[in-house]
Amino acid sequence: MSARDWQDREGIRAHGIRERTVMAGKTYSGNYFEDFTIGRQIVHATPRTVTQGDIALYLALYGSRFAATSASTFARDLGYPQLPIDSLLAFHLVFGKTVPDISLNAVANLGYAGGRFGVPVYPGDTLTTTSTVIGLKPNSSGRNGNVYVRSVGVNQDGQMVLDYVRWVMVNRREAVSEVGESVIPPLPGAVAVEDLVVPYEPGAPYDERMQALAGSTHLWDDYEVGERIDHVDGMTIEESDHMLATRLYQNTAKVHFNQFAQNDTKIGRRLIYGGHIISLARALSFNGLANAQAVAAINAGSHANPTFAGDTIYAWSEVLDRMEVPGRADVGALRLRTVATKDLPCAGFPYRDEAGKYLPGVVLDLDYTVLMPRRAGA
Amino acid sequence: MSARDWQDREGIRAHGIRERTVMAGKTYSGNYFEDFTIGRQIVHATPRTVTQGDIALYLALYGSRFAATSASTFARDLGYPQLPIDSLLAFHLVFGKTVPDISLNAVANLGYAGGRFGVPVYPGDTLTTTSTVIGLKPNSSGRNGNVYVRSVGVNQDGQMVLDYVRWVMVNRREAVSEVGESVIPPLPGAVAVEDLVVPYEPGAPYDERMQALAGSTHLWDDYEVGERIDHVDGMTIEESDHMLATRLYQNTAKVHFNQFAQNDTKIGRRLIYGGHIISLARALSFNGLANAQAVAAINAGSHANPTFAGDTIYAWSEVLDRMEVPGRADVGALRLRTVATKDLPCAGFPYRDEAGKYLPGVVLDLDYTVLMPRRAGA
Amino acid sequence: MSARDWQDREGIRAHGIRERTVMAGKTYSGNYFEDFTIGRQIVHATPRTVTQGDIALYLALYGSRFAATSASTFARDLGYPQLPIDSLLAFHLVFGKTVPDISLNAVANLGYAGGRFGVPVYPGDTLTTTSTVIGLKPNSSGRNGNVYVRSVGVNQDGQMVLDYVRWVMVNRREAVSEVGESVIPPLPGAVAVEDLVVPYEPGAPYDERMQALAGSTHLWDDYEVGERIDHVDGMTIEESDHMLATRLYQNTAKVHFNQFAQNDTKIGRRLIYGGHIISLARALSFNGLANAQAVAAINAGSHANPTFAGDTIYAWSEVLDRMEVPGRADVGALRLRTVATKDLPCAGFPYRDEAGKYLPGVVLDLDYTVLMPRRAGA
Repeated sequence: MSARDWQDREGIRAHGIRERTVMAGKTYSGNYFEDFTIGRQIVHATPRTVTQGDIALYLALYGSRFAATSASTFARDLGYPQLPIDSLLAFHLVFGKTVPDISLNAVANLGYAGGRFGVPVYPGDTLTTTSTVIGLKPNSSGRNGNVYVRSVGVNQDGQMVLDYVRWVMVNRREAVSEVGESVIPPLPGAVAVEDLVVPYEPGAPYDERMQALAGSTHLWDDYEVGERIDHVDGMTIEESDHMLATRLYQNTAKVHFNQFAQNDTKIGRRLIYGGHIISLARALSFNGLANAQAVAAINAGSHANPTFAGDTIYAWSEVLDRMEVPGRADVGALRLRTVATKDLPCAGFPYRDEAGKYLPGVVLDLDYTVLMPRRAGA
Repeated sequence: MSARDWQDREGIRAHGIRERTVMAGKTYSGNYFEDFTIGRQIVHATPRTVTQGDIALYLALYGSRFAATSASTFARDLGYPQLPIDSLLAFHLVFGKTVPDISLNAVANLGYAGGRFGVPVYPGDTLTTTSTVIGLKPNSSGRNGNVYVRSVGVNQDGQMVLDYVRWVMVNRREAVSEVGESVIPPLPGAVAVEDLVVPYEPGAPYDERMQALAGSTHLWDDYEVGERIDHVDGMTIEESDHMLATRLYQNTAKVHFNQFAQNDTKIGRRLIYGGHIISLARALSFNGLANAQAVAAINAGSHANPTFAGDTIYAWSEVLDRMEVPGRADVGALRLRTVATKDLPCAGFPYRDEAGKYLPGVVLDLDYTVLMPRRAGA
Repeated sequence: MSARDWQDREGIRAHGIRERTVMAGKTYSGNYFEDFTIGRQIVHATPRTVTQGDIALYLALYGSRFAATSASTFARDLGYPQLPIDSLLAFHLVFGKTVPDISLNAVANLGYAGGRFGVPVYPGDTLTTTSTVIGLKPNSSGRNGNVYVRSVGVNQDGQMVLDYVRWVMVNRREAVSEVGESVIPPLPGAVAVEDLVVPYEPGAPYDERMQALAGSTHLWDDYEVGERIDHVDGMTIEESDHMLATRLYQNTAKVHFNQFAQNDTKIGRRLIYGGHIISLARALSFNGLANAQAVAAINAGSHANPTFAGDTIYAWSEVLDRMEVPGRADVGALRLRTVATKDLPCAGFPYRDEAGKYLPGVVLDLDYTVLMPRRAGA
């Protein structure tokens, strides 16, 4: 008798010995396709105050070594007023709040685009997220449809911290025969350099000392479009690691946490939150991109294959574009593709097969933009 | 040859090659039944300063989403001067200190009662715990007896943070034939509503915006006595998770940490600290009780069955009582029973069998009182 | 076909379908024996600001109960201006920075000596490390050699936090036939009592209350040279625990994190960072040395055998010396040997066999000096 049979039997028996009526409606079951209408705005639950504890946990989870998010002295020399949190930590916190309302009944996360980071986040700041439905594409099956939302995370002063578009396939509460009209929004491409927010003012000269503390002498000037970098190092993920991270982000997607329920699925495992892989890949990219002190935009991203506890994550990057930042001589932007793999070192830059299909070992294809100091007077 | 045989052999050999005398008496072996006398007061070791790091770790361990302990903005709007720590975190810190003196030689934790929370705890506060022996019941076997203690946790200003009674069966150092008199104290029942401390002043109106941020429109007014709620979600526990938690609480009970020693026990596994399950059940209860912003009392609790790494915890709750709080129109009290299970979803509200015995999948039966905002002008 | 074969196959294929040139030189491959010259100074990357989050994580990882690093009230009574971080946490942070430059291409960590702690570290302090090459011993093989470095960790004001000597065997980039001269530096012995820094001023009388809060009445006066103490308790280590710790310290040694790469080694497992065992042994030593409020020096240390996830760590200590501290009547120094074992309780003080070889269950042999309050007027 399977645990599940046993549980139902006990469930019924326990039920049988109780008289009281079971009330319903207090539990939150998330939104279904029918619940989304163009222009509907959703204020997501659970505002979150960021603390120094989050900074330490983020370090413990990914081992990031970028100096600007590791040391207040370096951050101030760079031009920040104080030590900011990693912008990807802000991403996870803003994103996590949207899960119960947007993707609890999702069949698939189809993609995100146009992610633009705003003001930096400091310990003590409180983040909230609001989403607006900008597109609806009912699928011909009548059983589900694609929902496009724009989500904006703000701090306690209402300043934009992160603004991005995401689309997911969501089930209907009840199947329909007439599926109705589609409204497909224009999807943003890569964030334009004019729209990037540089989160710090021009600071001290980025001299030999700063470069030594940062861990590399390779500045924006030294990278070429098309250049590819194998980040060499690998990091193995444990169940406890990704669950600690995803709970920290108050992300409630069941597939990450509930092994008992996953036992009844084809995969049979807990799935690791895709954002956990993004943060690991960013941390691994230090080896080759040590001066990429801030992530300014996430242009697009795809989780090519699922990851599970026990997988060892590797990463490589390609420089897609190198852009001057209007009005800033001290810093430039690099548009990067970072590809993460599992149990697959990246000396050969594994990516897609001849048919353009992601190789089975590829788990992340991230198109994003980083900020890197420029050589003075170059 | 088992590791144990090998170890003894090596132990003897290592011993054999040393001349120096082995001194004793520096190691602490805890108290035995003989060491407890009515009225004896024990100041427990290791005061503990709470930090923002504890707040982040507590979030990472349980994924709690109650707004009042997640965001300083929300906490202030509710009526707190600043963001408090979760009162169950305070419980674990106060309780942990009592373990080396009270239950290091315990055969069983028999129960606790009358747990009343006092002033809220904020980062920077330092907690200490003092226990007083209020009852002694020598068992007829002459080998052990029940010890009843009242433990009080206070902050650096001596203000009460938590006050509760606990009783455990403790071994004697040496068996006796004459067991002596029993002194059984009156055990407190559920904490009376007049004795509850509301940890915050009346704050901003708990309006639509507050309810949206809290994640539910269901307020105190909407719950009925006898109502039962399946909290739906499940959370799987890893060894690393519960050990991180229990070390954070400086709880030294060996059974949680030492697999080598557990290998020689019938169970053969590390036992998970019961308080870890209480915190998981409380976090899961967000789905159905999102506005239960504070725990004011733990009336009684029983760990019905042990839990181990790999178990997936589910929970359901029943409303036992709904009480107005004297002098407060903004907040009411709900006395709840929350039942936690392992590998057993709670749609059928699993609890006891016909004989009144807990079902094998039931791991926690907690009787506690929460505070929830009331509908204005209702 | 092994994962490795598959990966190479895919690597080549992925490579085959790309035209762009692969640039090199951005990735950091560490220093080889040829890169070290006597007197060369290396400013290590990634300064690190310590936060309250580090304090909480350190507690969660080791469960340390020494009062001076647990409670700000106790720390102030003892004579600190505020709650300091555990000096071993400072050690790990200072040490971690040296790994990419000193031991990334190390064949073996041969030892360390003369470790002296300076000013205490408080949340908000930023640590950086600089190393100086003080010795070089090319091995006759021509393939590698021993590198001796002195590393100094300082805070944002340039005050010394930790100063120690370490030597490692490092590979050459290319083997040579003429190995050249050796320069072997004088290695410091145990740190002299005159050179110890007491990190706090004389504080409140270390009376009954302080001793109760500290958890022991055994003060410096009560320990005898030659006395040995079995710390009794054991702690099992999980993969997630040691990786969280080592990432927190930004220690990049691959062997701790990359299971996929370790699969191809003889050991086949991830090796646990030796410093993790030092911190566990120190936390376990509370039971018998509860008043050893600070570690003032690490005189010498050897990681006798490797440890792996699943091992249960035990420890015992021997008092090597008991020293008065010049100019301080309130505190004395104890030089200790603490031996840690795996899956081997320490009642028999397991250490070396007749031939002087460490027993297979012994994993750490640490010679260090702690500071402990003295009995007033003794």
